[in-house]
Formats: sequence, structure tokens, C-alpha cells
Amino acid sequence: MSDSPVLALAQDLLERQSVTPQDAGCQDLMISRLKELGFNIEIMVFEDTTNFWARRGTQAPLFAFAGHTDVVPSGPIEQWRTPPFEPTIIDGYLHARGAADMKGSLACMVVAVERFLAENPNHKGSIAFLITSDEEGPFINGTTRVVDTLMARNEIIDMCIVGEPSSTNQVGDVIKNGRRGSITGDLTVKGVQGHVAYPHLANNPVHQALPALTELASTTWDNGNDFFPPTSFQIPNLASGTGASNVIPGEFHVQFNFRFSTEMTDIEIKRRVHSVLDAHGLDYDLKWTLSGHPFLTDKGPLIDAVVEAVKAVNHQPAQLLTTGGTSDGRFIARMGSQVVELGPVNATIHKVNECVKISDLEKLTDMYQKTLENCLL
Amino acid sequence: MSDSPVLALAQDLLERQSVTPQDAGCQDLMISRLKELGFNIEIMVFEDTTNFWARRGTQAPLFAFAGHTDVVPSGPIEQWRTPPFEPTIIDGYLHARGAADMKGSLACMVVAVERFLAENPNHKGSIAFLITSDEEGPFINGTTRVVDTLMARNEIIDMCIVGEPSSTNQVGDVIKNGRRGSITGDLTVKGVQGHVAYPHLANNPVHQALPALTELASTTWDNGNDFFPPTSFQIPNLASGTGASNVIPGEFHVQFNFRFSTEMTDIEIKRRVHSVLDAHGLDYDLKWTLSGHPFLTDKGPLIDAVVEAVKAVNHQPAQLLTTGGTSDGRFIARMGSQVVELGPVNATIHKVNECVKISDLEKLTDMYQKTLENCLL
Repeated sequence: MSDSPVLALAQDLLERQSVTPQDAGCQDLMISRLKELGFNIEIMVFEDTTNFWARRGTQAPLFAFAGHTDVVPSGPIEQWRTPPFEPTIIDGYLHARGAADMKGSLACMVVAVERFLAENPNHKGSIAFLITSDEEGPFINGTTRVVDTLMARNEIIDMCIVGEPSSTNQVGDVIKNGRRGSITGDLTVKGVQGHVAYPHLANNPVHQALPALTELASTTWDNGNDFFPPTSFQIPNLASGTGASNVIPGEFHVQFNFRFSTEMTDIEIKRRVHSVLDAHGLDYDLKWTLSGHPFLTDKGPLIDAVVEAVKAVNHQPAQLLTTGGTSDGRFIARMGSQVVELGPVNATIHKVNECVKISDLEKLTDMYQKTLENCLL
Repeated sequence: MSDSPVLALAQDLLERQSVTPQDAGCQDLMISRLKELGFNIEIMVFEDTTNFWARRGTQAPLFAFAGHTDVVPSGPIEQWRTPPFEPTIIDGYLHARGAADMKGSLACMVVAVERFLAENPNHKGSIAFLITSDEEGPFINGTTRVVDTLMARNEIIDMCIVGEPSSTNQVGDVIKNGRRGSITGDLTVKGVQGHVAYPHLANNPVHQALPALTELASTTWDNGNDFFPPTSFQIPNLASGTGASNVIPGEFHVQFNFRFSTEMTDIEIKRRVHSVLDAHGLDYDLKWTLSGHPFLTDKGPLIDAVVEAVKAVNHQPAQLLTTGGTSDGRFIARMGSQVVELGPVNATIHKVNECVKISDLEKLTDMYQKTLENCLL
């Protein structure tokens, strides 16, 4: 057993095979530590997903750590240097599935709070943990439903750190202070099937749709802003045809995805896409799936606190970015909370041989603790 | 047994299950009749396909009937009113697979020649039959290889009737005096796969290709001519994508097909397509498959003879058209021959309950016989 409390807790969590939506006892481990600190625990089970909400104190401001105990599958075991659920230290790195995404962060949060409370028993405000086990899966029964429950009783998080692996080269070099929104359109353009030899008796939906798709692909949707790149349109999938080279197809399926900035809304995207399709006179069906609204935590108390904490540890400033995929931060932002993501280097996440630098776990614990000090003292 | 020789021969042929490339004895039946008339028979077997070339006489002009003994599969038997290989007469129609396409025509050709020779033993020129059993299949080892053999020994058909079902509402209302060419392009546009969230690190081949495809689909390739509609471009098949909505695909497959008039050549089509793709800076592979050059038999001795023969039987003029799919006529046209297609109504071909009007078989026999008279007396 290590004499580093954060390393020891990380190892304990990593031994548990908590592939989404399994928690495999990780939350019990965290809960037992938080109970000892005087946290009030609420276990919230939704369908196949176990979540917990732990709170210590009743005063504002409410500062929360958020994260997930579930991990993605190991992938091909034979490609791992070490067994994925037997945490192993090699050359100062802790190897295991979930080491960086994000059981390492969970260990740092718990230890940071233990130290903070030991040193500052009379801090102001309250501290909470919002922990789910479905972040890597369909994210339907996890954070979003805990947030619904809290909002229904008007219990609002003021400031939140999500422990997602935000860093690029060294821990704390990047803080994510927002994420783009994501919306997908599944378009079916309708034509009239027929024989290639008799094109006047058919109506090729591919030909009908090409000018509209060309226009959509070349449109500037917005110019982004200080925190977001411009909204992007991409066609990840499209297909038409019977397979025969002499048949004009009757339908054309196109899927497109927008990653959108806070300069744009899903409503406006839908309006503009329909406007282009209608202007080209297409006969179509279009189904929309909104994966997440964009969110942004602009400069303010939480950003100041985290930036200062990182700088105190690293002696160099962090970059504030909104790049990358979605995270559960978007659900918490629905409460109007200030939300940032700060966690380990993400170079190995979701890959074989996932690992985290042990010294980074110590640094991340310090950053979390200093953020608490900056916010609650 | 019928007292109509053409109906009797048609029934004999239709009882034989000659699904491509099987001949099932049809050619033997024809050969035995032609031998009795003094035809010299050459059986030409290429791979899985049996063909025969029968010629009577050595003088020019050489007039040939061309056709195929193979038929397409019956399709769902339970949807047939009568068993597809048991020729059955219902209300003046002969029902069986191949009745219209084209065993009916084969019977008409044989009986027409029998009558013509009985009445005109000292006609000028020569008569031939070019019969294959792979017209409905890959058409690799059939007519085209017989034509190669004939051309290699400089035996050239001057005039040819192909017995394809050319008619629309009544036999002889349409004579086909040419067919469009057909060429298919299989295009792969190459991009760089990546995550939808990081479009600047990827290169979507769909987006790259859309403007070029839009241009190809809206191009006027030619304006056709008196006998051909304008050359047409159609996209029968296209596909791209991994299935995941968050992955920018790395390749985009597009298949397009041209049906082209005699105003255009396959060489010119290729040149113009490559020019458009190159102008749009695409990185691509493109494989071409030429299914057939266009051919046209312009007004002249054969057309005059066939038009007059049809008018003598129907008392109204036939239409000369080049519409529809490809036929073996394109291979014979390679010899420089005059070629037309004249055969039964095509409304039921390739469908269940294929049938031919028995009185149309009698008329078609008269048309073939009168054409021989117009050409060889």
C-alpha cells in the first residue's frame, strides 16, 4: 500500500471493474470516506444507473465536485502492457482503465476535501459531490436526472469542477470553461425510383439534394467568439441506391451534425437548415436529435479561483478552452451554475494502456484544495 | 398441337427451361428446322455459353436474324397464373416465360424463312441466324464473341433484324433503329477521417465532392439528335460514413451512369468528367466500365424494307425509336451492319405472367417474311 492517500484511493477505485453502467462498489468507497467527513449522502438510482449526491453544510455558496465512476471497456486485453483492472505503477505512471478518465480525479477530489476540511473546519458555504456511473454511456439516467432532482427542490450548485481529463501535456495546462453544443439531423430526401434508361420517368433524390447539401456544407453559420470556434457542419453519413447501376434510387439518406457555439442556438440551426432545404424545393423528412446545448462559464469567481489555484501549483498560467466533445458539465450548466472541467492529461483516455502520472495526481489534489480555499474562505 | 406452325414452334421452345446461360435444347430445335432448309450450321461454344451461326447461301447481301434462346428466371412461381414453363393459351394470349422475350420472335423468324424459301427458292443474297443463350446474362460469351469470329474471317452481316420485343401497344408500332451507349463510373473520393468535434484535423470527402457532383448532375452533355434524347447522367448509388454520427468519414463512394447518344463518345465523357473532378481539386480514384457504345442505323435500305413490311401488315406506320436499355444489336453494329430491332409488345417482359398475343406472332411472321422479300428479291 502506498503512503500517498490519493494514490491509494485511486488504486482502490481502479481495481473495481466499473464498465458503464456498472459502478462495482466505487461509489460505496467514496461514500464511506465522505460520511466520515460529515457529508449527508443521497443515493439516487435511475433505471440501471446508480448516482449519489453528497452534501456537507447548508450555506451558500454551494461548491460541487462532479464526476463519474464508470469507465469505457478495456478493448483488446492482449494489447495492454498490464491487466486493465490491476492498477500497476510503471516509471511513475499509474496504469489502469480509468486512471485518467476519471478515477484519478475522483481520488484527488476526496483527498482534497479531506485536507481542506482538516485545515479549515469553519469555512463558509457548502461542499457537495455529484457522482454518476453512466457518463461514458447513454448519459440519460446519470447527471442530468440528479440535476433535475436538485432543481425540482431548488437546490442549486453555484460553482462546480467536473473532473474530466482536460489537460493536454501537463496537468492544469488546459481548463475547459465550456463546451460546444451538438445537434444531429437525419434527412430523407424523397424522389421517384426508376430505370436509369428512362430518367424522365424518375426523379433522382440525390440530384435534387446536391445543390442544397453543397450550400449547407459551404455556409458560414457564425464566426464563433472569444471562447468558441465557429459553428461547424459535417456530414458523417449518407447513402442512397439499390446497389444496381441501372436503377435511379427513390430515397436519399443524409445525416449531418452541428457542433455549435454560444453564438448559435438549436432553434436557429433548425430554422436555417429548413430554409435551405425548402428554398431548393426538396420533398423531405428531417428528424433532429439534440445531444447538448452549448455552455460557457465566462470570467468570474470560479474561473478566477481555478486559474489562480493552477498557477499556484504549476507556476504558469492555464489556457481556457471550449474544444472537444461533450461532457456532463452541460447538464450542470442548466442550473445556471459556473462550471469548469479540470483533470489529468487526456492523451491515453479510451485507449489501451490508459495511465496517469502519479505526480500529476498530487498536483491535481493541490489544485482542487486551493480552489476550495479560493472559493470558500 | 396447333395447326399454326409459328404457335407450335413457339410452344416447343417455351417448354424448355432455358434460364441464362442454359439453352435446354432450344437451339437444337431451331437447328433441326434450319438444316432441313439447307442451312450450314456452326455451333460456337464459348465458356458456359452455346451459340450457333447458321447460313444459307454465299452471296451478298447477307441478311441475318439475331436473337437469344435464354430467358430470365420466372420470379415467384406462386404469382403466375400458369406454370411459367408450361405454355398455356388464355383468351388468345400465349403465356410462358420467354413468350415475348424472345422465343416467340425465334419461332416467327424460322417460319418466316421457311415460307420465304418455299416461295422464293432463287432469291438473291444469303440468309443467316445468329443465336445465343446469354443475352439476359453477362453478354460476354454470346453475340459479341460470335461477331468477333465472323469479323476475324471477314464474314460481315449487311442487314440484321434482332427479334427483341420492340413494340409498345401492338406489334410493329415501334422499330428500334439504335440504342444509347452506357458507361458507368465508380468514383472514390479520398479525405481524412477524424472526429466531428475537430473538423480542422479532418477533411470530409463528402464536402469536398459535393460541388463537383452538383456540377456533373446539372451539366448538359449534349442535346441529342433526331434519333436520340440528350445524353443523361444519373447517380444510382452513393455512400459514405462509418455509421457513427461523430466521425468524419475518410472515403466517399459514388457510382454514376451515363446513357449516351451518338453525339457523344465514351472518350469524351471520360475527359469531361475528369476535367470537372480535377477542377474541384479532388483526390480520387475512378474506375470506368463501358457496357456498350451507342449505335444508330440511319434511314437506308434496311429501314425502308422493315418500315414497308410493317406498314403492309399493320396498315399504319411504325415509329423509329432508340429508347430503352441495351441489346445485342450493339455488338452486331460493330461490324458496320445495318441493324434494327423488331419484335412483340414488351409490356410483360421480365415480369410474372409474361405473354404474347398469338395473332401478333402471325403478324410478326408476315413482317419478317415481307422484310426478306423487300431485301432479297
